[in-house]
Amino acid sequence: MKPGIKDVAKVAGVSPTTVSRVLNNRGYISEETRKKVYDAMEEINYYPNEIARALLNNRTYFVGVIVPTVTSPFHGEVVEQIEYYLSQKNYKMLLCNSKNQMDTEKAYIDMLRRNQVDGMIVGTHNAVVETYSKLKMPVVGIDRYLGEHIPVVSCDNYAAGQMATRHLIDKGCQHILCIRGNSKLKMPGNNRSQAYIQEMEKVGLPQMILEVPFIMENVEKQKLIYDMLNAHPEIDGIFAGDDSLAVIALHVARQKGINIPKDLKIIGVDGTKQILGFVPELTTIQQPVKQIAKVAVDKLIDLIEGKTAESCMDLPVKLLEGQTT
Amino acid sequence: MKPGIKDVAKVAGVSPTTVSRVLNNRGYISEETRKKVYDAMEEINYYPNEIARALLNNRTYFVGVIVPTVTSPFHGEVVEQIEYYLSQKNYKMLLCNSKNQMDTEKAYIDMLRRNQVDGMIVGTHNAVVETYSKLKMPVVGIDRYLGEHIPVVSCDNYAAGQMATRHLIDKGCQHILCIRGNSKLKMPGNNRSQAYIQEMEKVGLPQMILEVPFIMENVEKQKLIYDMLNAHPEIDGIFAGDDSLAVIALHVARQKGINIPKDLKIIGVDGTKQILGFVPELTTIQQPVKQIAKVAVDKLIDLIEGKTAESCMDLPVKLLEGQTT
Repeated sequence: MKPGIKDVAKVAGVSPTTVSRVLNNRGYISEETRKKVYDAMEEINYYPNEIARALLNNRTYFVGVIVPTVTSPFHGEVVEQIEYYLSQKNYKMLLCNSKNQMDTEKAYIDMLRRNQVDGMIVGTHNAVVETYSKLKMPVVGIDRYLGEHIPVVSCDNYAAGQMATRHLIDKGCQHILCIRGNSKLKMPGNNRSQAYIQEMEKVGLPQMILEVPFIMENVEKQKLIYDMLNAHPEIDGIFAGDDSLAVIALHVARQKGINIPKDLKIIGVDGTKQILGFVPELTTIQQPVKQIAKVAVDKLIDLIEGKTAESCMDLPVKLLEGQTT
Repeated sequence: MKPGIKDVAKVAGVSPTTVSRVLNNRGYISEETRKKVYDAMEEINYYPNEIARALLNNRTYFVGVIVPTVTSPFHGEVVEQIEYYLSQKNYKMLLCNSKNQMDTEKAYIDMLRRNQVDGMIVGTHNAVVETYSKLKMPVVGIDRYLGEHIPVVSCDNYAAGQMATRHLIDKGCQHILCIRGNSKLKMPGNNRSQAYIQEMEKVGLPQMILEVPFIMENVEKQKLIYDMLNAHPEIDGIFAGDDSLAVIALHVARQKGINIPKDLKIIGVDGTKQILGFVPELTTIQQPVKQIAKVAVDKLIDLIEGKTAESCMDLPVKLLEGQTT
């Protein structure tokens, strides 16, 4: 049994009301009594109950964060930064990994509501948009459209696609493959391949797009890319929608004995610390992860405090040139 | 303002007591009334308050999880799995990234206590052992000693070191460098280098140990390894205490133009999905991450339920042979 105010009062030899007044800094309390109470708290290991306070104030300072999985480098880094910025404002994070299962995501949403979170930050890939719209609760999407009135925070996805495609064209690529996720999901990230299409049209180069769903296993993703490179040996450039796809393409190409970057150039998007550490040779367009996390947290807290919050989808990206282009 | 029982009662046209009886399944309630209450809950978006129930029952079903950072592949995967196993038992995870700052870790411990977590699972690198011992609360360490009576869950670290060292010896290495973390921290992982020392003694080979603290920046780690390889060109094998160190060593060696595996063989420890995806060529000793997470969660719940729990530090590891040895 966790110790309560009554236990503190007993050990300190004062009334529970006195303990409560010390904790809430209310009314006059002598220095001696105050010390007695704090000593008793220390002795029996009592901590003021923030949960009880939350219940009284109808405000828990809990924020639910739902991502596909923290083992994806982008989401891992986003979660780390969100947790940091939330903790700076005394908010606590309830982390949920949806594994891209719609049922799991819905169950998490219910759980978060029963636990009275003040709001949610969501970066999942599922199409449970109607669920979020109906929540009547502060919600912010990270690179996801979650409903008409839910603000979205993301990098400038169009600029990312444009920068990547132009980089490959500038390096002399003529047959550029764009590898992207499932186009049926309406996501801000779709602007990456949209920019690819428009840049290729501008210079009159042929477009090739390969869809590789995020939820597929790595071996299946490898197979799709392997088959594509076999069917189209003319491919001399790959713009992958994210670094994980770029690294898979890189390994497939190496297995096929293709000389990189001489015969095939590869560029990704994300530029997380992890990818930079594990695959430093990769050329990529870096997302401003810290900024994305900070803006998302700020907007969520604005909503929680009853203010309005608009989407912010133009956080700046930058080219990090490695040895794969 | 979140809707409460009174609001449900008003919309349903019944008394708050009736709503409470429906929610708690107490006493006779007609089907008609029950439906009215559930319809009203749906209409005004009311969710039963688990926080209030937690307060009544002195049990929150919150578990605090403190790791250095979810962006480390091992901790990211452990956190994902812990969250999964906790959610299977209706527990919720409050995630804390200590960034290996002792003050941050202490502040998190206080925060978790004020929020009445039922227990904690801790995998940090800091020496705040006395803090955990004094908690008088269920705590489980992941690959960390946290105090005399706190159970530890880990892989068989000695077997990992033995398997890795023998593998390099079997492959013909004569001058094997062991790269490990800070030896001053008393951690189960130290058994990895302990096994290296004993295996090298057995076969009469010279021992070389390089300490590379976990908290160092990657560029500093690279520099240390670079300098070591310069000073000892005879090194023909590297046993890195974890995959992140192994990958850094791999990149340093490639930069120096060393032929891998011909002139230098490298093996790590962890074998997470991420490393297997990003650096599939790495030979490594794989930890059973799912099992570690499951056992840690089971032991914590045992402690929460008043049962006893012993340490479990011999979860099996296995060799995954890639192209770096």
